[in-house]
Amino acid sequence: MQFMSDNAAPVHPRVWDAMRAADATDAPYDADALSRELDGAFAALFGRECAVLWVATGTAANCLALAALVPPHGGVICHRDAHIETDECGAPGFYTHGAKLMLAEGEGAKLTPAAIEAVIAPIRDGVHQVQPHALSLTQASEYGLAYRPAELAALTATARRHGLAVHVDGARFANAVAFLGCTPAEACAAPDIAALTFGCVKNGGMGAEALVCFDPALAGLIRLRRKRAGHLQSKGRFLAAQILAMLEGNLWLANARAANAAAVELAVAAGSRLLHPVEANEVFLTVTPAERAALRAQGFAFYDWGESGARLVTAWNANPDHVAALARAITSL
Amino acid sequence: MQFMSDNAAPVHPRVWDAMRAADATDAPYDADALSRELDGAFAALFGRECAVLWVATGTAANCLALAALVPPHGGVICHRDAHIETDECGAPGFYTHGAKLMLAEGEGAKLTPAAIEAVIAPIRDGVHQVQPHALSLTQASEYGLAYRPAELAALTATARRHGLAVHVDGARFANAVAFLGCTPAEACAAPDIAALTFGCVKNGGMGAEALVCFDPALAGLIRLRRKRAGHLQSKGRFLAAQILAMLEGNLWLANARAANAAAVELAVAAGSRLLHPVEANEVFLTVTPAERAALRAQGFAFYDWGESGARLVTAWNANPDHVAALARAITSL
Amino acid sequence: MQFMSDNAAPVHPRVWDAMRAADATDAPYDADALSRELDGAFAALFGRECAVLWVATGTAANCLALAALVPPHGGVICHRDAHIETDECGAPGFYTHGAKLMLAEGEGAKLTPAAIEAVIAPIRDGVHQVQPHALSLTQASEYGLAYRPAELAALTATARRHGLAVHVDGARFANAVAFLGCTPAEACAAPDIAALTFGCVKNGGMGAEALVCFDPALAGLIRLRRKRAGHLQSKGRFLAAQILAMLEGNLWLANARAANAAAVELAVAAGSRLLHPVEANEVFLTVTPAERAALRAQGFAFYDWGESGARLVTAWNANPDHVAALARAITSL
Amino acid sequence: MQFMSDNAAPVHPRVWDAMRAADATDAPYDADALSRELDGAFAALFGRECAVLWVATGTAANCLALAALVPPHGGVICHRDAHIETDECGAPGFYTHGAKLMLAEGEGAKLTPAAIEAVIAPIRDGVHQVQPHALSLTQASEYGLAYRPAELAALTATARRHGLAVHVDGARFANAVAFLGCTPAEACAAPDIAALTFGCVKNGGMGAEALVCFDPALAGLIRLRRKRAGHLQSKGRFLAAQILAMLEGNLWLANARAANAAAVELAVAAGSRLLHPVEANEVFLTVTPAERAALRAQGFAFYDWGESGARLVTAWNANPDHVAALARAITSL
Repeated sequence: MQFMSDNAAPVHPRVWDAMRAADATDAPYDADALSRELDGAFAALFGRECAVLWVATGTAANCLALAALVPPHGGVICHRDAHIETDECGAPGFYTHGAKLMLAEGEGAKLTPAAIEAVIAPIRDGVHQVQPHALSLTQASEYGLAYRPAELAALTATARRHGLAVHVDGARFANAVAFLGCTPAEACAAPDIAALTFGCVKNGGMGAEALVCFDPALAGLIRLRRKRAGHLQSKGRFLAAQILAMLEGNLWLANARAANAAAVELAVAAGSRLLHPVEANEVFLTVTPAERAALRAQGFAFYDWGESGARLVTAWNANPDHVAALARAITSL
Repeated sequence: MQFMSDNAAPVHPRVWDAMRAADATDAPYDADALSRELDGAFAALFGRECAVLWVATGTAANCLALAALVPPHGGVICHRDAHIETDECGAPGFYTHGAKLMLAEGEGAKLTPAAIEAVIAPIRDGVHQVQPHALSLTQASEYGLAYRPAELAALTATARRHGLAVHVDGARFANAVAFLGCTPAEACAAPDIAALTFGCVKNGGMGAEALVCFDPALAGLIRLRRKRAGHLQSKGRFLAAQILAMLEGNLWLANARAANAAAVELAVAAGSRLLHPVEANEVFLTVTPAERAALRAQGFAFYDWGESGARLVTAWNANPDHVAALARAITSL
Repeated sequence: MQFMSDNAAPVHPRVWDAMRAADATDAPYDADALSRELDGAFAALFGRECAVLWVATGTAANCLALAALVPPHGGVICHRDAHIETDECGAPGFYTHGAKLMLAEGEGAKLTPAAIEAVIAPIRDGVHQVQPHALSLTQASEYGLAYRPAELAALTATARRHGLAVHVDGARFANAVAFLGCTPAEACAAPDIAALTFGCVKNGGMGAEALVCFDPALAGLIRLRRKRAGHLQSKGRFLAAQILAMLEGNLWLANARAANAAAVELAVAAGSRLLHPVEANEVFLTVTPAERAALRAQGFAFYDWGESGARLVTAWNANPDHVAALARAITSL
Repeated sequence: MQFMSDNAAPVHPRVWDAMRAADATDAPYDADALSRELDGAFAALFGRECAVLWVATGTAANCLALAALVPPHGGVICHRDAHIETDECGAPGFYTHGAKLMLAEGEGAKLTPAAIEAVIAPIRDGVHQVQPHALSLTQASEYGLAYRPAELAALTATARRHGLAVHVDGARFANAVAFLGCTPAEACAAPDIAALTFGCVKNGGMGAEALVCFDPALAGLIRLRRKRAGHLQSKGRFLAAQILAMLEGNLWLANARAANAAAVELAVAAGSRLLHPVEANEVFLTVTPAERAALRAQGFAFYDWGESGARLVTAWNANPDHVAALARAITSL
């Protein structure tokens, strides 16, 4: 029974169907009919003009955006636990040609205006120290917390005051929107941000994320860098098909709701064991090594989280029986 | 009737089947069962140990290989018409951190020992000039010509004499092997080369190329760089599935033979119009702008090649009726 | 008797004096009084506003300028024999993060509008091919030829038409101005260019070149990159002192005239042996290996130029007796 | 009365003399007689073979060393307050092509084995997280503390256990050696380290630091990167002359002793105000803004250190009267 990660879950049947429907030869790269639909589809979703590029991975989406927003001699403020800092093997350094990640603190991997100010305050003006040029947030955060629209407004206001462009890593954006119940635009402070990595892979896609640019000039620059990074696939229509299928009938939200609901069920069972509130599809809880062993002995697969914790991740295809079984097992610990 | 490129053709049914069969959750990245089969499958194909990584594009495969073979202050000798020079938006410069492509001449986009020596000869030793560290060949070449094993032996000997590692861009390696009738190892001088980009996308795949390393240490280095470039897909099992399906029952060769046969049919029709011998699935021929217009008026789609030429590319799914129709149309010009 | 290069000649006494006079502690980096004089001194020289940075080498000046003018995914058009292409160990690739040098042809290492157009013409628009962003000229050229103001006007017009920023490598700018007899602004098409590397080291300096930016915003960007490249010396006042001493009383022109005059004397002796007209301080001539040996046996030091040629370079401190002796020796060959 | 920094002090007369003596034309770059003496001079100093390169700045020396020791996808462990982290405008990111600085804690800007282990411990093996490849220490530390030989032995042992190459930033190495009274080799754990930035500029030089490599192969690689970074000055003999003058008769130690003695005099006066022990030529002390103003009113120039502190730096040319005056002024606060 799989609670390791949503990043290896199956592909949703409607995504499969859309990919099959895209099989016939069309123009290569992103000149095909489906790729050309992306801008409009996301404009409808966000209620404003946007330019959208597909890429295969969140790392590529995040780093292409940052590279277009930050000069090599600049810096990106992000949380100490941000994926770009901890899990991308230095990809931001590669894509930005050496820009610096400037690490901010914050409960639950969430940033606050104060945490950002604390990073900026000691930086001397001038050429000796790296100057920040962008802010990167993760919605939902690495610990499964969702920024409220008011929090985002405060953060983008802070960024604006310091001349920072804002990027949102939305690997689990769908889960955040499903939890918040607000509009997608409200959930990422569009269009006060420059770009959003709109994740699909963890939410029923196969290998396609949408990089949504709220500034069309930015997209033009990123198109060049995407090619240069080897991320312009010649049969790009299959990536566009995945993304469009996710949007069609709001499949992205339905999938996220399913995953979130399963997480809530586990959270209820975990009760006071919870390390963080559960606002997306990740559950972090306190369990001793012996308890972890006991759970695994019952067939549950998950990651350890530190010495005496565990991370449980639910996916769009959460099996109700498995979830109920794990909830019971946690209760019985 | 489509003769633009093989890079946007449909995905072969057996590739689709293999992808569907890979749907169930498995370990993420390249820890899944299919990804772990790749080394063995290619070892069987090449008759020697190799370490194999999937990536989504040929550009990524080419550049990851070069970046691992050449220091930032080094150079790569390649043909003036090589894809890495002409069609990758400077991706080699990005991946290698600024290494230099050193352009050699040669008929039909093929290199010769003499052409390589002509590049090396004027380079002064020392720190003032970029020193070559690798040689990159394309099999089949950008003009659809195949290097014979003896030619490859001469080229790798030249490379060895100058301490150059050798990379083979095999975006259309299958077509070359199908034409040559030799073993895959003979067709790329394995293991005298360091790495081969074994193309699938143009040959019935969707979005997966195999980077075959004949030096396992090299593969270890490239694994890090692949992640860093955002090319380590979390549902990598779908890329592995594509590649394994291509190898299964030698589908890769069957597909290439089909494409090559269609090209030969067009070549026969083209006769003295041919700009290059046809040894793969590309046909370059002399046609006036008026003749091109006439062909297009009959429904044939293809690229212009200079002022008075055309490039016709056939794919694994070449429609016999379309091919025959185009052959007739060319004959009738 | 030294005719190897001007790049290792002694430092002019007035430069020494200026350096000694700068010894007392002042503010570090470029906040000292002398560094702050540079903008004004060059504004007077060029008759227009400019922002000037010192750096230790021409390579650093050239590449800092190019890195600020060209994105990593862009290209720089330059002559096939340009110093940035042939003698900087790939420094442009390092500083620009992988931008591409696009090589143009031209007699005497001089570019023409037609040569530039020939580079640009085959480049397809779009994301697949590197697009040119800048043009780099060398005044005087690598073969010691000077662009006339009308030639520069035609080149900058071509650049403007294609949206290319222009950089002038003036390692021997002084020699060109001395030959042309025009104003410094006319000799580099200021302010139609973005930046000029104003060379001092080959002309009596020790280790300081002036990077003259005709766009102040550009200088701001380069200041950051200079620091980042380790080229912001803490005792920068000594570099500023060298440059100011060169400008003081037009020492730079006097030194260049002395070097040029010596070259002319050798050119007259060389007569029909000359490979290029002599318009600066370099003389390229045809001499057989036996003749070279004969000259060396008489104590003359110089570089071979190909199989049967030689390069003679004169410097600001050309010894009249040595020059006359070499002229006689050439005549007697 | 100047206590801002040692980095803008005058050049020592014997350095001036050595530079003047180097004026006559010699071979360019580092082929001159003086540059060729460096290896031997430092071999004598360190009692072992070494290969030595001059560069103009400490930033260049530090970053050239790190770039040769760490791949782009690797990391460098250093103190949170290390110069490479705080004062080089991201130069390590530029030179290493994006490698990551991994920040360790430690009193007085000094690292300990435990602090290094604390950085390494949470790093998961594999391709997802940046792996450390080098350790960079500063001797004396950014707060003017000197590592004892036993401390260095423990640090290099830790590094060796984790496969980390070690670089020592010795911008004030002379001050540390002068304080420690040990041999230069003991003061940097040579040859257990790969490279030492042997500072001269802050100690009476003009614009030359020696990068001492205890592994000759490393030096060969750095030579290429130095050229590529525009740091190979053509009149390099003047940099070699500075460095050799510093070694001659142990001028480097005499200068450092003078600076250290002045710092000790100030430290005694500061007494309980000291923020750190004084083991080099920097004095950090607690002073209120009002006290700072009082000192400045008496003509003393220095940097603020946080809200209620000051940094006083003494140089080789410390004026005894000024030092005594400042000591009195501090006592009288």
